[in-house]
Amino acid sequence: MDAEPLVAPGGCIGIVGGGQLGRMTALAAAALGYRCRVLDRDPLAPAKQVAAHDTADYDDMAALERFAAKVDVVTCEFENVPVAALEALALWKPVRPGPRAFAIAQDRLPEKDFAREVGFATPPYRAIAAESDFDGAAYPAILKTRRLGYDGKGQARIASAEEGRAAWTRLGRVPCLLEGLVDFEREVSAIIARAADGALRAFDVVENRHRQGILDLTIAPAPIAPARAAEAQRLAGAAAQRLGLVGLLAVEMFVDRQGRLLFNEMAPRPHNSGHWTIEGCTASQFEQLVRAVVGLPLADPARRANAVMKNLIGDEVRAWSRLAADPALKLHLYGKAEIRAGRKLGHVTRLYPLDVTPDPRSAFP
Amino acid sequence: MDAEPLVAPGGCIGIVGGGQLGRMTALAAAALGYRCRVLDRDPLAPAKQVAAHDTADYDDMAALERFAAKVDVVTCEFENVPVAALEALALWKPVRPGPRAFAIAQDRLPEKDFAREVGFATPPYRAIAAESDFDGAAYPAILKTRRLGYDGKGQARIASAEEGRAAWTRLGRVPCLLEGLVDFEREVSAIIARAADGALRAFDVVENRHRQGILDLTIAPAPIAPARAAEAQRLAGAAAQRLGLVGLLAVEMFVDRQGRLLFNEMAPRPHNSGHWTIEGCTASQFEQLVRAVVGLPLADPARRANAVMKNLIGDEVRAWSRLAADPALKLHLYGKAEIRAGRKLGHVTRLYPLDVTPDPRSAFP
Repeated sequence: MDAEPLVAPGGCIGIVGGGQLGRMTALAAAALGYRCRVLDRDPLAPAKQVAAHDTADYDDMAALERFAAKVDVVTCEFENVPVAALEALALWKPVRPGPRAFAIAQDRLPEKDFAREVGFATPPYRAIAAESDFDGAAYPAILKTRRLGYDGKGQARIASAEEGRAAWTRLGRVPCLLEGLVDFEREVSAIIARAADGALRAFDVVENRHRQGILDLTIAPAPIAPARAAEAQRLAGAAAQRLGLVGLLAVEMFVDRQGRLLFNEMAPRPHNSGHWTIEGCTASQFEQLVRAVVGLPLADPARRANAVMKNLIGDEVRAWSRLAADPALKLHLYGKAEIRAGRKLGHVTRLYPLDVTPDPRSAFP
Repeated sequence: MDAEPLVAPGGCIGIVGGGQLGRMTALAAAALGYRCRVLDRDPLAPAKQVAAHDTADYDDMAALERFAAKVDVVTCEFENVPVAALEALALWKPVRPGPRAFAIAQDRLPEKDFAREVGFATPPYRAIAAESDFDGAAYPAILKTRRLGYDGKGQARIASAEEGRAAWTRLGRVPCLLEGLVDFEREVSAIIARAADGALRAFDVVENRHRQGILDLTIAPAPIAPARAAEAQRLAGAAAQRLGLVGLLAVEMFVDRQGRLLFNEMAPRPHNSGHWTIEGCTASQFEQLVRAVVGLPLADPARRANAVMKNLIGDEVRAWSRLAADPALKLHLYGKAEIRAGRKLGHVTRLYPLDVTPDPRSAFP
């Protein structure tokens, strides 16, 4: 921890990106007495409803400089921010996490290489830069664009080299990664905070269930062996440490049929699978990010309730009225005006006592 | 509950007053997907950091009309808003709670009369409008201005009619109330929400400890007999019902040496003694106000942790760094730039399991 925090309460946190993650970060910052300024090219970005804001493209250097002049420290709520923007901002103000974590997380190839260096196991993977790269790989496999994939976009499941070449053409023949398909038992994630002095605090490992490539449910804690959860936290911490990251690192992993952890991907920012911490922990992932970024000591991430979090995606948000009427649910809506298929518009969390195992089947009747 | 809520998520709540109560209301509204617009004459009012805002005097009718045009419903975060402003706003948009609750709460004489009509016991009281009104009263007593008193301001303890007349002169000979001094065991408060359909939901009754007339500590729950707490909630509910109030009503009471409840004062807004609900309940008083105001069903006010809340007043806020470093505390700062004696600048809450009695002496070492 910084002896004197980098930014005292009353100071301003610059948030690059104005989506729901930025919005919830701004709300947590306000509770601690910090102001926020959001930068997003979308004038209607939902975080702008709760903070001062600028509207500009991320490659508008003059706008970045004006933004930097008005804030005391910069953080980022989405991982596909141009690294050049973060590097420019870092000329003027501290950027936490720094550009390096984003550079690695934005490209699946160095990301996977990095994960192996840290000690994670990974599915088999190889870079795809030419048609011949599909030869001799193990199938079935998943072809993923190296950059700009999220929520299942930019991915294709393939059964052979021939299918791979066709899928690659459909993906525009951009640089890709071919990953061996994991016969996994479940998907889990670990979110860890790292402070400037190297202190690490991990939230409990959770299970994630996806639907059509988008996170649907998070179950906290993940029903996995404590030793496996501890290993996931230790590896996530090793990754954060090696990155020298100040802020949050979220790591998504598979647990295979043998119970082994396999790295999937990581993001140096708050993560959808951490939304349960708003009510499930004394301090949420958003408060933890704010603390790391301004240089306050990290909060205690201990779980105070078990939880199931469900995303409200597209039309699912139309159930808000029924969800708001259930006194056992905590409803969160993100202030997005337009309902679109696949768009994350809110989430809802059901809490359970610590001695009750959450049942995702009955959580949202 | 309204079958269709008055205001759907995405709509805008107008908040008259931009202090910390408005700020925390705006944060709760944002979590539910509502926008807020704050009206305050102070351009630096802290709620303006987290919401859209207007700066105008409360008697500026044109400004009130412009404000009303930009919001869907109006609420109020302080009770001394001019009733004429609320009546004007009510011409254009629903005002919740309505002007009547404020009119009564702003004047200690009709407030006490109202409390007695509802069934509360009160200390003996009489109106002071002339020097002779001090004759024949019981002493010691407290002389209070009928209007605009808060945090112990506009009050004097007096031992005789002669002292009373001198104190009255010092208070500017404004209309006052003379109240018999209560030899109380403790002070408690009840906060209750009332929905448009008459549904009532009370938070647990808490104990309040004041220092120099300003709330210092709140202990949740109050260590009083369950029947007494239930009586306090029932009476607060009767008051809210009789007012036809939609929103929150906070009632401060004394518990005398015989264990009887005596009405002290009430406020139709979020209350400092309810700040513990942010972490201590699944839904805070601020979320509950938002729900009542927009017409969502009220949330479950059940306590999920015991708590002691301490206000950070004046120089006390300088301890923020130490308080932020204690992982068992939840620190809240209000974004006020200037530290002044007697000014509420933040609060801090310590949580306890439901089976542990909070000890205010050891809560903030």
